[in-house]
Amino acid sequence: MQIWRVDLGTGLLQREPVPESWARLGGRGLLARILLDEVPADCEPLGPRNKLIFSPGLLVGQMLSSCDRISIGGKSPMTRGIKESNAGGTTGLKMASLGIRALVIEGRIPEQIAGAGWRVLHLSLEGARLDPAGDLAGLGVTEAAARLLQRYGEEVAISLIGPAGEMRLSAAGIQNLDLDHVPSRIAARGGLGAVMGSKGLKAVVFDPAGGSRPPIADPEAFLEARKKYSRNLLGHPVPAVYRDYGTASLVMLVNAMAAMPTRGFSSGQFEGAEALSGEHMRELMLQRGGESNPTHHCMPGCTIRCSNSYGDPKGKVLVAPMEYETIGLMGSNLGIADLDVVARLNWEANDLGLDSIDLGAALGIAAQAGLMGFGDGGRALDLLGEIRRATPLGLILGHGAAAAGRALGIRRVPAVKGQAIAAYDPRALKGTGVTYATSPQGADHTAGNTLRAQVDHLDPGIQAGLSRTAQINMAGYDTLGACIFSGGGFAVAPEVIPQFLNARYGWQVGTDILQTLGRETLTLEREFNKRAGFTSADDRLPEWMTSEQLPPHNSVFDVAAADLDGVFNW
Amino acid sequence: MQIWRVDLGTGLLQREPVPESWARLGGRGLLARILLDEVPADCEPLGPRNKLIFSPGLLVGQMLSSCDRISIGGKSPMTRGIKESNAGGTTGLKMASLGIRALVIEGRIPEQIAGAGWRVLHLSLEGARLDPAGDLAGLGVTEAAARLLQRYGEEVAISLIGPAGEMRLSAAGIQNLDLDHVPSRIAARGGLGAVMGSKGLKAVVFDPAGGSRPPIADPEAFLEARKKYSRNLLGHPVPAVYRDYGTASLVMLVNAMAAMPTRGFSSGQFEGAEALSGEHMRELMLQRGGESNPTHHCMPGCTIRCSNSYGDPKGKVLVAPMEYETIGLMGSNLGIADLDVVARLNWEANDLGLDSIDLGAALGIAAQAGLMGFGDGGRALDLLGEIRRATPLGLILGHGAAAAGRALGIRRVPAVKGQAIAAYDPRALKGTGVTYATSPQGADHTAGNTLRAQVDHLDPGIQAGLSRTAQINMAGYDTLGACIFSGGGFAVAPEVIPQFLNARYGWQVGTDILQTLGRETLTLEREFNKRAGFTSADDRLPEWMTSEQLPPHNSVFDVAAADLDGVFNW
Repeated sequence: MQIWRVDLGTGLLQREPVPESWARLGGRGLLARILLDEVPADCEPLGPRNKLIFSPGLLVGQMLSSCDRISIGGKSPMTRGIKESNAGGTTGLKMASLGIRALVIEGRIPEQIAGAGWRVLHLSLEGARLDPAGDLAGLGVTEAAARLLQRYGEEVAISLIGPAGEMRLSAAGIQNLDLDHVPSRIAARGGLGAVMGSKGLKAVVFDPAGGSRPPIADPEAFLEARKKYSRNLLGHPVPAVYRDYGTASLVMLVNAMAAMPTRGFSSGQFEGAEALSGEHMRELMLQRGGESNPTHHCMPGCTIRCSNSYGDPKGKVLVAPMEYETIGLMGSNLGIADLDVVARLNWEANDLGLDSIDLGAALGIAAQAGLMGFGDGGRALDLLGEIRRATPLGLILGHGAAAAGRALGIRRVPAVKGQAIAAYDPRALKGTGVTYATSPQGADHTAGNTLRAQVDHLDPGIQAGLSRTAQINMAGYDTLGACIFSGGGFAVAPEVIPQFLNARYGWQVGTDILQTLGRETLTLEREFNKRAGFTSADDRLPEWMTSEQLPPHNSVFDVAAADLDGVFNW
Repeated sequence: MQIWRVDLGTGLLQREPVPESWARLGGRGLLARILLDEVPADCEPLGPRNKLIFSPGLLVGQMLSSCDRISIGGKSPMTRGIKESNAGGTTGLKMASLGIRALVIEGRIPEQIAGAGWRVLHLSLEGARLDPAGDLAGLGVTEAAARLLQRYGEEVAISLIGPAGEMRLSAAGIQNLDLDHVPSRIAARGGLGAVMGSKGLKAVVFDPAGGSRPPIADPEAFLEARKKYSRNLLGHPVPAVYRDYGTASLVMLVNAMAAMPTRGFSSGQFEGAEALSGEHMRELMLQRGGESNPTHHCMPGCTIRCSNSYGDPKGKVLVAPMEYETIGLMGSNLGIADLDVVARLNWEANDLGLDSIDLGAALGIAAQAGLMGFGDGGRALDLLGEIRRATPLGLILGHGAAAAGRALGIRRVPAVKGQAIAAYDPRALKGTGVTYATSPQGADHTAGNTLRAQVDHLDPGIQAGLSRTAQINMAGYDTLGACIFSGGGFAVAPEVIPQFLNARYGWQVGTDILQTLGRETLTLEREFNKRAGFTSADDRLPEWMTSEQLPPHNSVFDVAAADLDGVFNW
């Protein structure tokens, strides 16, 4: 495996061996290491000193179920701290088959060229090219991806931005193709699409021609571990639920614990939850048929297949996939109890290349400001149209909830470090609240969700430890390239992780490797943020969530500051 | 003197003796002490835990020339750190005659009342009242002040907000009346108008009926010091220039040193500088006559009278006063070389209750984004109309340059800690650049301008010490309630300051009292900011100013980080 380094100023590619100190990292952990080593923490996120980095996790490339994720990172224009955002799809796999441990994109397309149009960075074993892409400017990712596939062939992986990234909106993500070539696997959070836009890149194309599966030091041991892992994953009850109902299976569960964001985070239960539930969604998809498909995989080889294709009454796809977080932020949070409406909003967000979490939270701010009525899906769609047309109101919303709150004078903004809270109200799920508050990534449920812990989620005294464990584990999984849902398979037999790594790389790591990687990653990330100027004052939930009671439990977020400050004292 | 404390939730006023630890402070220093003692540094600036504090400086109340300034403060919604903004006019004097050392406004008008309209806080020796002011909602300060004067009589002092403060825009200031009852003495910077708006107050009225000049412990010694001070001030050459040409006298000087913000800080010299100069402005005013007046005082007893009333060709006042910073940010920075146009923009900004520095910088961002052409004053006026109508574009601009830069995707934002740089480009006046970078107030020329130092302003090695001295002195003057221009009088005979204080209060302070007060104030402010999460990473100029050369010197801001970090090591 190599480090591929592209200087956009010159168009030159350098292929370097992986430095010793980076060799035992991949994905999120490697991003943190590279950012700390190479990117000045005080740089402007959209300026020339920031870098955009892609790195598949350590296990990527072997088509292990749920273990082919790509991590994308840089300094975030949204949080102004370190940012890693990961996604499924085919990007990680194709990068691994090119032998790329990390792709480091430096500088930016010189302005005289950028003025003449956008560029596509094309990478293959033959090297790097910066192809003109002026014809793609302003296109949504659906149309842009179709043209790129036509141009570069069906075998390539593509990471691309939509109009949101071109506009350098803080809520812009980077889309990746799924197995059906749909550009819907978005590295959504923290504005990495804006970083890509600031560099003058519309897309990165990975052409795997001539590449091969990364070598395995001990194939027999690897195969044995694979069998054990697959068996455990298949036998676990939680992935089975995800297979049938997708992440939308969480709707009724989170609503039952009264943590469902509802009408601008003003209640933890939504009277329309049934209509948004995974159960109802499955029923609709089975009923409607056609292109609808409740069980779909986002990465090759995944046995969980939590993804889906959601079709309209005629069976034509409205959006694929429809996920819980989007349902929470663009459904209940907006008072919308109609999955078809949420699907249309979701498709628009995807096509614009926008994070549906921050965008949904921003629409909730717009509703609080009287710019739309709660429940008015038509108006919400109009507001997405404003973003596409780059109107001032569109810009306000496209920068996400925190920026919208400031512009529109709304105090009740659900965000930490400038990034919106996901679809679990932290006043009813306080462990995840601790993660929102303290994660170096800003509010992020994937950084350590305590949802499934068998504890009293309202008891403030026990949450910091839960969050600590979850954050360490997740940073470890993100370094492996493993999906959050692989945890079901790994948790039953944690020794499988070192078995995989030792067989793949010829290492001798022990059973605590997941936690070792997780702690190392978090330590690196926190060091970057410290250099960027973050302090414990940034590790707090918004003030209003500590005083405004959340019905029906009428709970507030009341985990002690000392507990928050102690999360990383391991 | 007393501390007056108003709880807006109950409407109750408490009059308390000045606590021992606050007794030797006033103005900016006392604000810092109170904020540190009473306001949680992590509070939301527009939330209920923030306080809005008014404090006249230590020398206020005796009609000493240029020494009756009012300091207003709180946690800033713009910088999210400590904020003091001071102004001339009559507010300080009338507060002092009521015996108020500081007015601390706590909580906010309960929402059910705020829903029914805005309130005026009326203060007199009889106590506090919260009068309905629904009829003033949405009014510019000109009309609102006229109605308030009719309602409360001509003797009152008034601090009030315009539509900008009602909208809680981050660039909203608090206007105060001058001697002609014109609401133009604005505590402009850092969004204190938004803090006042968040509390539900349209105005604070100070009725001095029955009040008296604060007592003097040793009247004879005070009189002697006053004579010496007045003599020195009158004999100083710089105040004499300000008397004739106002602060606009700086135009040709700053343009000559190539530090004049020009077309979005892209050059240090403006070809239209002559047309904006103080010399030309004076000529116009003398020529036009009528209400035009080149020499006007903003505070009673001021012998400098740097203020003015700028009239149109028919002699009707366009704006009063027209100041250098506005000319720099709304004139040359926008490529506008016509004082009449600048005057119209200035009047609009004043009437809206907006900081003309941050607003001018925001319009420069709008021009960079293609929303107006440089030099197009008509379009600039239209954009101010957007603010008045609270359109989305208006909101973007009304939150100031940093917010506008983010929303509009412009990287070249001239701001530090979220607050816009004033009309001295720090690449050509690097000592003031050090002040912009390191002042706890965010970019602020009044925090320590090194303009008049007889040094090479381009030499990066000597600037930190200059800024240190200037920042300490200015924090001292702001604590006394003394205008920046009083320095001329004090610098010749610094012993006058302790003579004033000892005679007024019966103290025994020494000749270093100005610096002692300044250092104490800066230390308190930095402690507040530290608690709010500020680090040395916040003490930096924008990255682009360290790499983009400023014509004609083609200089960049290159003062070493270590020098910036050492400014407060005294």
